This record gives sequence, C-alpha cells and structure tokens, in this order.
Amino acid sequence: MQSGKKWLKVRNMTASKMKTKSTVIRGAKRANYDAEVIHQILDSHFLCHLGVVVDGEAVVIPTAYVRIGEAVYLHGHLHNRALSAASNGQTVCISVTHIDGLVLARSAFHHSVNYRSVIAYGNGEVLEGEEKSAALDALIEHYVPGRLSSLRPGNEKEWQATQVVKINISEASAKIRSGPPVDTDADYELPIWAGEIPLKTVATVKPCPKNLPTVDVPAHVTDFVTNYIKC
Amino acid sequence: MQSGKKWLKVRNMTASKMKTKSTVIRGAKRANYDAEVIHQILDSHFLCHLGVVVDGEAVVIPTAYVRIGEAVYLHGHLHNRALSAASNGQTVCISVTHIDGLVLARSAFHHSVNYRSVIAYGNGEVLEGEEKSAALDALIEHYVPGRLSSLRPGNEKEWQATQVVKINISEASAKIRSGPPVDTDADYELPIWAGEIPLKTVATVKPCPKNLPTVDVPAHVTDFVTNYIKC
Repeated sequence: MQSGKKWLKVRNMTASKMKTKSTVIRGAKRANYDAEVIHQILDSHFLCHLGVVVDGEAVVIPTAYVRIGEAVYLHGHLHNRALSAASNGQTVCISVTHIDGLVLARSAFHHSVNYRSVIAYGNGEVLEGEEKSAALDALIEHYVPGRLSSLRPGNEKEWQATQVVKINISEASAKIRSGPPVDTDADYELPIWAGEIPLKTVATVKPCPKNLPTVDVPAHVTDFVTNYIKC
Repeated sequence: MQSGKKWLKVRNMTASKMKTKSTVIRGAKRANYDAEVIHQILDSHFLCHLGVVVDGEAVVIPTAYVRIGEAVYLHGHLHNRALSAASNGQTVCISVTHIDGLVLARSAFHHSVNYRSVIAYGNGEVLEGEEKSAALDALIEHYVPGRLSSLRPGNEKEWQATQVVKINISEASAKIRSGPPVDTDADYELPIWAGEIPLKTVATVKPCPKNLPTVDVPAHVTDFVTNYIKC
C-alpha cells in the first residue's frame, strides 16, 4: 500500500487461487477479487463493453446489462450479431469501467486515471419463457428502479424481436485506483502543480414534448435523478 | 428520419461502400461513416475499450488513447498482455462510447440510451524512437491540453518500461442516438411519463496534498476543468 492511495484490500476467492486469465498481473496492487466489490461496480453501471470473437477477430460493442447473482443479462435485437455470437458456445468478455477522475502527476509517466473496473468472463445462453421475461423486467428495473410498473406491458411482436442472453460468469476481477498522484520521491520537490480532476456525472430531467399535459414527473424519476450514481 | 430524433446524415465513404464488419446493420439509421464525425467522437474521449483475441478468446480492457490522423495510439507497461496482443498481427477492435443520457419511453421495448459511439478496427505496430516519443507526448497533451511543457521530462527507465502501439485504423463506423423517446403512435395517448435523463460530466480540481505551497493551479488545468468535454 502506498501513502495517499486507498487501495481496497485484496481478498482471494476460490476463482483467484490459481493464476487464470482474470489474474491481474499489471498493477496487481490495484486488483480485487472480492465478489462484493465486483458486484458493487457492476451494479452501479448499466453499460458494458461486450467482447466476442467473430470470424477469428475481436468485436467489442457497448450494450446494456443487469447483474443477478453470478450472471450478467444482455438483450438486443433477434439478429444482433455480437449478441448471437455471445451465445454460440464461446467464452465472452464483459468489461465495465467507471471513470472517477484524472490523475495529474509531476511527470508524464505517473499520470493516471482514477477508476473502478470489472473484467468478467463467461459463457452465454439464450433465454426463453419465464427466464427471458424476468431478465427483461430486471433490465428495466436496473436501468431506472421503479419504472417497470408504470409502463405499457410488452406485446408479442416486441417479445419475438428481442433476444436475451444470460452470461454465466466463470471468473471476474476488479481493478480500482483512487486518490492523488504518486510520484517518485525526488519529484515532490519540484515546483509542478499536481492533483486530481474528480469527475462526477450529473443527471437532469427533460420531459418528452409529447407527454400528456396531465402527466407529472413520477417519484421514481425524480428520486433516480437526485441520487444518480450510475456511470 | 423519425420525428423527435436528430439523426446525423449518413454520408458514405469508400470504406463503407461494401458491406464490411463495420457496416452497422442493427439500427442502421443511427449509423455514420463520416470521418469528421468519427474523429470528433474519438477526440472528445480518452478511454477506449480495446478488444483483442488471446488464446482464441476475446479480452476487453479499458485503456487511454489518442487519435492522430487515421490511427489510434495506445500505451502501457512493456509486458501488458492485451497491448502486446494488439501488435501481434491480429486485427483489433477499439470501442469508444459517450453516454449522453437515458431515454425513458412508454413501453419497456422503446427505452433507449442517448450515446455517441465509434467502433474501429485496425492492426497494431510497436513504435520506437521518435515515433514512440511523439505518441507519448500526444497522449499527455490529449489527456490534458497544455500539460506537457509543465512536467519533469521522462527518463530512460520510464522509456524502457513503456510500450507504445499504433493501431492503423482500416475501418470504422459511428453510431449516434439523440433526442426524446420514440414510441409507437398509440402509446402517446397513454398517461405515462416519458422523457430523457440527460447526463453531463462535471470536473473539479483537487490539488495533491504534497504540492509545494508556492505552486498555484495552472491555467491549463482551470481551463480544462471549466470547459470539460471529455467523456
């Protein structure tokens, strides 16, 4: 642990007892394999970057997700290529990144980013029936808690057009950096300004121009915006 | 074009005249192959999700970048596995996503995200000498414009520990959504609140506790924070 940094304690879980592809080698001090930490990072974002192999090459697409237990649920159009690839038997990669700030050091080399990220690997399966329905509901409720019950229910056409894929996470790791720059000892004596540029996402409300005049902003929206913590 | 949405005009470039892996099929109305649009999206972010194939599986890592011309420059530790894979001859995928807002529709199906994203493909090469030096300088200047000249110059040890990879972009596409929800006609008559939750990133300044008391916040930092537009 270095002074000025708040490294989370690394607790080894079963999955990390041997060196796997999730074992963080570069910047290992920033690694965390604690399920609670990993869940927290996943649950406070809604957009992941999904990596799949298509025709032997990596394809990375941004897509919405929700985590339930040790699985991540994705959805998309029935013919979405990356999503289809995610359920063809291959192990896929889910990458989620919160950017918390820029870190400006006294040398270029020690510049950094304050972030919380998770990289998870798993295999996908297409869901049908009740499981598909529950995942779609969970996706909306994760996106904006309390929203689902206010909506017009889905119909058969929408159901048919939508593909839902469950990624069963087989291994995952988190990587976190926070706090001020860490420079080499001699550099602290230099008359160079260093510090952090913390970043915060602010949410506002912009009603649809086509809302009926009798419809007010519901509590689930004002609460969500006031306490915005996603990404 | 649908009412209430500001789709950017799609202008076809040479790269998009035939259907390639960059051709946006799902949500094709949101696609854009204009180099200027693609550059703008890349230049107003600093963190991409790099996708590479390692042992036959996709690996996606978040990493800083700078675009110059039709190339994206990455850097990392000499032994960074994903970065090394990015220069082993394979075609890699660079994904950059700005999340501009949440889109709350009257049905779950029409919920969406306002975003600007680029997916680019290319082959990497390790840089040395002048090219490596210029790329490292550009990375810092892209991260915080005006910062480079204030820093302690790099040294041999830092130089040796750093790997710089140039990804020569062979094809790229942008995808953009903006504006209010677009619901099915009948749903506009429902007494359901719909709208956007625009998201904005706000930057602040947090000086390093170890700064010398005589050192003020420089103009390049206050300017950057005041006009923050990156991610």
